[in-house]
Amino acid sequence: MAAAEIQDLSRCAVHTQTNKPWTLAQCCDHYARAGLGGVSIWRDVVDPELGGVGLDEAVRIVRGSGLAVPAYVRGGFFPGLEPAERQQAIDQNRSILDEAAALKAAQVVLVVGAIPGLPLVEARKQVAGGISACLPHAESVGVKLSIEPLHPMYAADKSCVNRMAEARAICAALAHPMLGIAVDVYHVWWDPELAAEIQSAGQENRLFGFHLCDWRADTRHLLTDRGLMGEGCIDIRAIRGLMEQAGFNGYHEVEIFSQAYWDQDQEKYLGRITESYQQFA
Amino acid sequence: MAAAEIQDLSRCAVHTQTNKPWTLAQCCDHYARAGLGGVSIWRDVVDPELGGVGLDEAVRIVRGSGLAVPAYVRGGFFPGLEPAERQQAIDQNRSILDEAAALKAAQVVLVVGAIPGLPLVEARKQVAGGISACLPHAESVGVKLSIEPLHPMYAADKSCVNRMAEARAICAALAHPMLGIAVDVYHVWWDPELAAEIQSAGQENRLFGFHLCDWRADTRHLLTDRGLMGEGCIDIRAIRGLMEQAGFNGYHEVEIFSQAYWDQDQEKYLGRITESYQQFA
Repeated sequence: MAAAEIQDLSRCAVHTQTNKPWTLAQCCDHYARAGLGGVSIWRDVVDPELGGVGLDEAVRIVRGSGLAVPAYVRGGFFPGLEPAERQQAIDQNRSILDEAAALKAAQVVLVVGAIPGLPLVEARKQVAGGISACLPHAESVGVKLSIEPLHPMYAADKSCVNRMAEARAICAALAHPMLGIAVDVYHVWWDPELAAEIQSAGQENRLFGFHLCDWRADTRHLLTDRGLMGEGCIDIRAIRGLMEQAGFNGYHEVEIFSQAYWDQDQEKYLGRITESYQQFA
Repeated sequence: MAAAEIQDLSRCAVHTQTNKPWTLAQCCDHYARAGLGGVSIWRDVVDPELGGVGLDEAVRIVRGSGLAVPAYVRGGFFPGLEPAERQQAIDQNRSILDEAAALKAAQVVLVVGAIPGLPLVEARKQVAGGISACLPHAESVGVKLSIEPLHPMYAADKSCVNRMAEARAICAALAHPMLGIAVDVYHVWWDPELAAEIQSAGQENRLFGFHLCDWRADTRHLLTDRGLMGEGCIDIRAIRGLMEQAGFNGYHEVEIFSQAYWDQDQEKYLGRITESYQQFA
């Protein structure tokens, strides 16, 4: 069953990193004027150490825009070679949850981490332990945690969780209602078990996020060459249909890392984003 | 149980593409003098249309070298938008099998194919159909066919089979003793089910090939930035242990696509290959 065509932009949110050249204020201003429903916020535009405007100012900007905040990005990176490093990661994730709560973000997206040379089996155990240690804080501040399975090409140093099945297994093991999954089409489109996994995750109430972009067949860079919806080979509408059949009714978050697009006029680019969203999502 | 350290090079083979700047004659000469057991031959150094020396000359060179030929690379690319294209692919794979037989290659490695925009489910059906149509010819010329699951980052246009599990499913469906799997550590190292999959494939007598290289954590290119064994994050010796526990006793085929290494002195590079093979495989 194909998903119905999208008629407006009320469910569309854009990640600030998609328009990386813009400040948080520029993102919120342009997104609100374009009629988007939400903005998903990267810590880069908030944390002064990363070049951001600071949390208080960020809260002021976001509240003033009237935009919803489906996600604060990103927490995670739990594995560490030493216990102290792992504890530091847990502490940082608790701070990130506090920031997310201040921004009224619905969830913190977890890029769970991996360390070259650390066996993936061990890394996955450390990830489950780290998330478990953060869940009480997530509950107390009212912000969900979502595991984003990352494409296997990021298994060396970014995420030891590379498929929906593994994310679901962690959710099942920790059995906490504040823990779920962010499904990014870029990372999971190739998985032969995708349809069944989305269905199961829906039944288990784990579908917290849905990220859109496209996979360019002639991808030139592992990190910064994502495609605009329609430019690649992902049947985004079919995956949205699976998500909706599984009960997901949250935001459709556009998250495109693309040096080619960052180099262009961001206002025109936002126009292309909303057009391609309506055409292909 | 860790695999025992390798004492000699008799089970080591190198793919000609690893030393791409060399001709087939140079490859065979250097590999034989280095004491390698085999050479896996890419069609590029055989087929005159791809710049090769022609089949008769290739046969003469390889037989003269005394090297075994674990694999002829590569067949596959079965999906096609039209029936005529799919038939053409089948015909070409039969020719490739004939070439492999002339070279006394044990197997033809299949990169099964994918087409951007063609649903992966449909592509996988076409792959099973194509392989099925080639198996009688494989049997008649005495050359095995091995499905090489390719890393999910190649799912758009090179292979719709991206995990051991999917390759095993095709083998099970076609149930032919001449069909098996080539396990390349580069493609499968990240898979949480790798150990169980190798064990099952061994029980089913499907472990036909074993390819070595490494995954660089800071991979700069999707196609031509593989690492030499030991330069990346793959525990190659552990995977060799799994293969041996599952009954595999074939060649260890070094297959490295690396522009950085192609730009270097190939004789010195071959020395580094054999050193790193003994240290890390």
